[in-house]
Amino acid sequence: MAEILQELNFIIQDKNRVITEKIEDKYLSDTLGRLKGTALAVVLPVSTKEVSGIMKWAYDREVQVTPRGAGTNLVGSTVPDQGGIVLDLTLMNHILELDFETFTATVEPGVILQDFQAYVEEKGLFYPPDPGEKLATIGGNISTNAGGMRAVKYGVTRDYVMGLEAVLPDGKVIEAGSKNIKDSSGLSLKNLLIGSEGTLAVITKCILKLVPKPETSVSAVVPFDSLGAGIESVLHIIKESTNPTAIEFVEKKVIKLGEDFLHIQFPYPEAKAYLILTFDGREEEVLANVQRAKNVVLETNALDFIKLEDKKLLEDVWKLRGALVKAVEAVSEQEPVDIVVPINRTAEFIGFINELEKESGMQMVSFGHAGDGNVHLCVIRGNRSQAEWEAEKSKNMSAIYHKAYKLGGLTSGEHGIGLSKKEYFLKETDALNLELMRSIKGAFDEKRILNSHKAYNI
Amino acid sequence: MAEILQELNFIIQDKNRVITEKIEDKYLSDTLGRLKGTALAVVLPVSTKEVSGIMKWAYDREVQVTPRGAGTNLVGSTVPDQGGIVLDLTLMNHILELDFETFTATVEPGVILQDFQAYVEEKGLFYPPDPGEKLATIGGNISTNAGGMRAVKYGVTRDYVMGLEAVLPDGKVIEAGSKNIKDSSGLSLKNLLIGSEGTLAVITKCILKLVPKPETSVSAVVPFDSLGAGIESVLHIIKESTNPTAIEFVEKKVIKLGEDFLHIQFPYPEAKAYLILTFDGREEEVLANVQRAKNVVLETNALDFIKLEDKKLLEDVWKLRGALVKAVEAVSEQEPVDIVVPINRTAEFIGFINELEKESGMQMVSFGHAGDGNVHLCVIRGNRSQAEWEAEKSKNMSAIYHKAYKLGGLTSGEHGIGLSKKEYFLKETDALNLELMRSIKGAFDEKRILNSHKAYNI
Ligand SMILES: Cc1cc2nc3c(=O)[nH]c(=O)nc-3n(C[C@H](O)[C@H](O)[C@H](O)COP(=O)(O)OP(=O)(O)OC[C@H]3O[C@@H](n4cnc5c(N)ncnc54)[C@H](O)[C@@H]3O)c2cc1C
Ligand SMILES: Cc1cc2nc3c(=O)[nH]c(=O)nc-3n(C[C@H](O)[C@H](O)[C@H](O)COP(=O)(O)OP(=O)(O)OC[C@H]3O[C@@H](n4cnc5c(N)ncnc54)[C@H](O)[C@@H]3O)c2cc1C
Repeated sequence: MAEILQELNFIIQDKNRVITEKIEDKYLSDTLGRLKGTALAVVLPVSTKEVSGIMKWAYDREVQVTPRGAGTNLVGSTVPDQGGIVLDLTLMNHILELDFETFTATVEPGVILQDFQAYVEEKGLFYPPDPGEKLATIGGNISTNAGGMRAVKYGVTRDYVMGLEAVLPDGKVIEAGSKNIKDSSGLSLKNLLIGSEGTLAVITKCILKLVPKPETSVSAVVPFDSLGAGIESVLHIIKESTNPTAIEFVEKKVIKLGEDFLHIQFPYPEAKAYLILTFDGREEEVLANVQRAKNVVLETNALDFIKLEDKKLLEDVWKLRGALVKAVEAVSEQEPVDIVVPINRTAEFIGFINELEKESGMQMVSFGHAGDGNVHLCVIRGNRSQAEWEAEKSKNMSAIYHKAYKLGGLTSGEHGIGLSKKEYFLKETDALNLELMRSIKGAFDEKRILNSHKAYNI
Repeated sequence: MAEILQELNFIIQDKNRVITEKIEDKYLSDTLGRLKGTALAVVLPVSTKEVSGIMKWAYDREVQVTPRGAGTNLVGSTVPDQGGIVLDLTLMNHILELDFETFTATVEPGVILQDFQAYVEEKGLFYPPDPGEKLATIGGNISTNAGGMRAVKYGVTRDYVMGLEAVLPDGKVIEAGSKNIKDSSGLSLKNLLIGSEGTLAVITKCILKLVPKPETSVSAVVPFDSLGAGIESVLHIIKESTNPTAIEFVEKKVIKLGEDFLHIQFPYPEAKAYLILTFDGREEEVLANVQRAKNVVLETNALDFIKLEDKKLLEDVWKLRGALVKAVEAVSEQEPVDIVVPINRTAEFIGFINELEKESGMQMVSFGHAGDGNVHLCVIRGNRSQAEWEAEKSKNMSAIYHKAYKLGGLTSGEHGIGLSKKEYFLKETDALNLELMRSIKGAFDEKRILNSHKAYNI
């Protein structure tokens, strides 16, 4: 141990940035803290050179490495399940360049999403990816291909990554992608790194695409007397080219939890389910789109269309939407699910969940991104004993994932697979695809030291 | 030979679809016909099963395979340079499904772009990728990550591929991607296949994303007294969020070739260079954007802003733009270049080209996609002997590619590398990136039988 510390301190010449004793629990888990690993050391590099040095060291010695950003993932992907080194990138948190001519920003991976969003917005620019957890890092967002609310209009993190610098498991540094808008020059290594959950390389620099900041943004709450009715009207909203930025759905029973948790009031309490819509862009466009959306939903079963003109109400609605997971967790342990299905199968999937809830007696609350079929389900433990919870959960989860795949869905729309969803992902994914992914892993990481048992790995 | 024919006819039970004698030249080259290969047979499968059968056969025998769509590429990528089998996918040309609920179409790879565009537009939908050559196939477009005019607003082919079915070199069939909008479930095999120029697998089915058909579209010609002035105003057009669909640039000297070739007249003949702009979307939006763009360009050196309201003029302008390569070729053999640079380096790059033209005495005409830094350069042979042409071309091309990379550019924005650009691509690309690409190739194609010496391969 003393020897390791010495070697690491030879690479990172700052004793405060190599921790081998009294390693805090947060470094050994994810944001849920359910799974816990062990680590020889936590290392906090401040430069690509240091990351490269650490990786070369680890590769030579076949020491396992777990990279981490803010550790806000919900799937155990930052758990050092194989021991070894935890590589914390949060000190590499500088915005290196804002290039107004190419509409790009170049940042270190540890930059916090909300800091970055605020920074570019102040300059009249806009970074569209907007996952719920604003304290996540850009590197973590890229590694999970994070989605979020604004994906309906703007797409996901993948769509805003122009280029990456990354350190390979053996310490070599590559650049993938560039500031070029088009690229038909060889295999897209950049796209391979995005969403790879730290299994291929450590991201050390990110060139991100920005857009002009929208002039205005308007939100509305649309109440329905059933979730099915709400989901159905989503297809109409999209077809009518009203160009919504966000289409979230949430059931009354979940709103209730949020209201109790935050002590705030959601509008139109008599409804059973709600859509929350946002539109952004130039003022005239937005107003026209809002009007068209209003007409569409009122023609398709909506009980009302409540434009959130009051600033306090607007804040409350989004605050509540943002706090739903925490509201659920305040009541009971839960298993978070981030299944995605083709948008026209959302209603059927949620119907299935509601049936299963009745049948199994296990409470399940669903909400999420209706505009892209991304269902965030919380399967709730309630007062089950650990053994009961494990057994029933496992059975129900298998049924849920199986159904999702039958509908053409996938294990994860935005959170990734990590450790927690591996069981289901491996079961439902074609063996040939898994084999290819593992061969690709081998091309980057022959000794398999980087997050080597996560996601698609065995 | 007779034995091969017999074996192939066992897989493809239709003598007309296995050609081993009098193989037409078009199967042995690309659209330029400069490079020519040889083939044991040309095979025209009609199903995934047949493709799979052929690939398994070829893999077992280590026979080289060259897949091809319409053969419209400009880089030798369909030249069977290693002999073996040419796998022509043009008979797999069925539109299998149009799914109005998920806004997707599922097609076979041999569907012709213009047929597909017309088909979906008739149904009120829109497939944004719009490369110049409308007779290319969807499979070819995906394999080259084709770009085109509308990329400024809508992105490139990659952005519209939701899912793929593909046959691996050994005959196994995989599915990559899906109808799901979000995906954080393992490595993105789909994104690896896109733009891979038929080096990893044969694409046999494509799920494509559609958008609602824009209500209207308006184009304008903007004349300038220098190309530099035109390129400069591009940045302003983009910054002002006028949301253009296309921003093309073309120099007067090239327009002249097009006018002579087509016997039509381009507006504002006194100018030295032009931008051609398009805007599409909802009527009010488009009109507002056109007005804003007009203000911007007139403030930044434009000589005029000619809205193409006359239908004949509109057609002529785009016809001329579309015919530029052919107009150049009518005069002389040329070397097509499809370099991309970051948009703010376009002017510098073109300045370099103009200098080099003077210095070298070799005529170079540039035009292309100003909105995304994608410069289509024709380096013109004139009346040089073959030996002179080869020697001078090689020298100039090396200088051009080297300059592009110095500016942060890439060999190809949309045409791919194929055989013709390999020399420059291999020279300018980091060895580590090439090594990774080749290892990935190995993961898909251990025996290296599929386009095995093209693009990033040695
Ligand atoms: C309340 C809440 C709401 C959330 N809402 C959303 C949402 O709307 N959308 C969404 O997509 N996610 C959401 N998440 C999940 C989480 O915030 C995202 O997955 C986020 O992208 C993780 O970023 P991070 O910096 O915390 O990464 P971490 O959790 O530290 O790491 C995530 C993965 O990325 C890898 N990694 C991190 N940094 C690097 C790097 N530099 N190089 C290589 N690999 C790296 C890790 O090894 C790990 O596999 C939510 C989480 C919470 C707690
Ligand atoms: C006049 C003209 C204008 C052009 N303008 C543009 C433009 O604006 N933008 C642009 O991007 N390109 C342009 N091109 C280039 C060309 O049209 C594109 O590269 C097109 O995508 C090629 O499609 P194709 O069907 O002809 O493919 P091919 O030329 O037959 O093949 C191209 C590559 O794809 C591979 N391939 C084809 N089908 C499959 C399949 N099913 N599975 C696996 N691999 C496959 C081939 O092996 C080859 O490597 C232009 C060409 C011409 C002649």
